Amino acid sequence: MTNEERAQRIVSKMYDNDPFSRWLGVERLKTEPGHCVLRMTVRREMLNGFGIAHGGITFSLADSAFAFASNSRGRHAVSIDTSISHMVSLKEGDVITATAIEEQLSHRIGHYRVEVRNEAGEMVALFRGIVYRKSQEWE
Amino acid sequence: MTNEERAQRIVSKMYDNDPFSRWLGVERLKTEPGHCVLRMTVRREMLNGFGIAHGGITFSLADSAFAFASNSRGRHAVSIDTSISHMVSLKEGDVITATAIEEQLSHRIGHYRVEVRNEAGEMVALFRGIVYRKSQEWE
Amino acid sequence: MTNEERAQRIVSKMYDNDPFSRWLGVERLKTEPGHCVLRMTVRREMLNGFGIAHGGITFSLADSAFAFASNSRGRHAVSIDTSISHMVSLKEGDVITATAIEEQLSHRIGHYRVEVRNEAGEMVALFRGIVYRKSQEWE
Amino acid sequence: MTNEERAQRIVSKMYDNDPFSRWLGVERLKTEPGHCVLRMTVRREMLNGFGIAHGGITFSLADSAFAFASNSRGRHAVSIDTSISHMVSLKEGDVITATAIEEQLSHRIGHYRVEVRNEAGEMVALFRGIVYRKSQEWE
Repeated sequence: MTNEERAQRIVSKMYDNDPFSRWLGVERLKTEPGHCVLRMTVRREMLNGFGIAHGGITFSLADSAFAFASNSRGRHAVSIDTSISHMVSLKEGDVITATAIEEQLSHRIGHYRVEVRNEAGEMVALFRGIVYRKSQEWE
Repeated sequence: MTNEERAQRIVSKMYDNDPFSRWLGVERLKTEPGHCVLRMTVRREMLNGFGIAHGGITFSLADSAFAFASNSRGRHAVSIDTSISHMVSLKEGDVITATAIEEQLSHRIGHYRVEVRNEAGEMVALFRGIVYRKSQEWE
Repeated sequence: MTNEERAQRIVSKMYDNDPFSRWLGVERLKTEPGHCVLRMTVRREMLNGFGIAHGGITFSLADSAFAFASNSRGRHAVSIDTSISHMVSLKEGDVITATAIEEQLSHRIGHYRVEVRNEAGEMVALFRGIVYRKSQEWE
Repeated sequence: MTNEERAQRIVSKMYDNDPFSRWLGVERLKTEPGHCVLRMTVRREMLNGFGIAHGGITFSLADSAFAFASNSRGRHAVSIDTSISHMVSLKEGDVITATAIEEQLSHRIGHYRVEVRNEAGEMVALFRGIVYRKSQEWE
C-alpha cells in the first residue's frame, strides 16, 4: 500500500464514522498524506444571532480538515492547540472550502495551516492547528 | 435600565435568534456584563471519527459564551481571534459548562477567557478570544 | 529531596546558565513546582521605535517564567507554542513582574499561563504557553 | 511619494529609533508595503539555560518584522495578539532571516505571518501577528 493509498484509507475510516462532519455536510475533495481539502454549504441552522454563520461552523470545517490531514500520515494524531481568525462573515447558502497543508512535521509534533475560502476565493478564515503524534498506527 | 438588565436584554436578543446555539442545546445559566455561563449535553450527532465529541462542538459552546459575554457590554463586538486547547475528551451524554470571564477591556479591544468543564469539574478545554468593539450600540 | 527542593535546584541550574535572562536583569522572586515569579526593570536599550518597551522584552520575561515553571516539574520541557497579547505599553524604568501558573499537566503536555503586571498591578501582557514533556529527567 | 517610498521612509524612521532591534543586530534586507525581511546573527548573550537561543530572541526578530510590515502601510499599527511556535533550536553563530507577509488587511485589522529560517533554509519558527490599525498616519 502506498502512502497515498494509506492516507485515503485512514481518512475514509475517520469520515465514515464522523456523525458531526456528516451533519455539517462535509464533502471530501482531496486527500493526500498531510493534506486535505473539504467543502460544505452554510445552512440556516448554522447561523448565529447576527444572521451570519456561527464561528463554530467555520472552525468545525477547518478542524475536520486538520484532523484528516494530520492523521493521514499514518499515526494517531491528537489536537494540542488550535486557533482561528474570522475575516469575512458568511451567510446562508455560501459554499466554503477548507484547504489543510502541513507546515512542519517532526517525530512527535505536527503543525498545520487551514485556509477557508468562499466561492469568490476570498479568505474567510485562517486556522492553525498543532497535533501530538502518538506511537499508535492506524490499521 | 441598569448594566445588568441591558446585558440580559442583549444576550436574550442574541440567543433568541441563534439557530446554531439552539441546535447545540445551549442553556443560559448566568449573564452579567462581561460574563456568561452556558451549559449543554453532548449528543451522538456531535461525535467525530474517534467516537468522542468533535473539537468543533466544544469550540462552538465556548465561542457562544465568548460572544454573549463580549456583546453584553453594550456595543457590537466582533471576533478577531480565538484559540482553543482540548485537554480531556468527551463522550455522548457528557454535560459541559462554559464560563466566560473578561480578562481585559479597552475602548476598542476586549480579551476573554472561557473555561469548559465537565460534570466532575475537570477542565476539558481552555478557550481564549479577542474582540474588536464597534461604535454601534445594541438597541 | 522534596519536589520543592528539586524545583529550586532545576531552576537555579537553568538560571545560572542563562545569559539572556541575565542580560534582561531577571530576578527570581519565587519558584515552586509548576509555578514561578520573575521581576525585571525596563531599560533604555529595551525600547522600540515608539519609545516603549519592544514586544520582545515582555515576551522574553514571560517565556523565561514559563520555561522555569514547566521544567521545575522534573522532566525536560520544550516549548511547542506560545502566544502573547500586549495590553498596556511600558516605558523606561517600569518594573514588571511575571507570574507563571500551571493550567493543566498531563503525561506529555503542559499548559501554562503567565500574567505580566506593572507596579500599579495592571495586567500589561497575558502570555500562554504549551510544552512537550520529554522522558529525560533533570539531574 | 509612492507607497514603496512611504514604506521605506516609515520603516527607516522606526528602525533608526529602535534601540532593541539595534542590540539584536537586526539588518533590513527588504521593505515593501505590508512586507519586510530582516536578518540577524545569534550571539552568546542571546542563549538560554539549554545553550540554545532564548525563545525571546527569535520572537523579537519576528516581532520587529511584523511591526515594520504592518506600519509600512502608512497608519500606526499596534499589536493585538502574537504567537510563535519554535520548531528548530538555534545555537551561537546561526544566522536567521525573518520574512513578514500580509495575510489580510481590512480597515481596522491586519493579519501577518512571519517565517524565521536558518541558513539551511529550514523553518526554525513560525510567527503570526494581528494589529489594530489606528486612524493616525505616519508623517
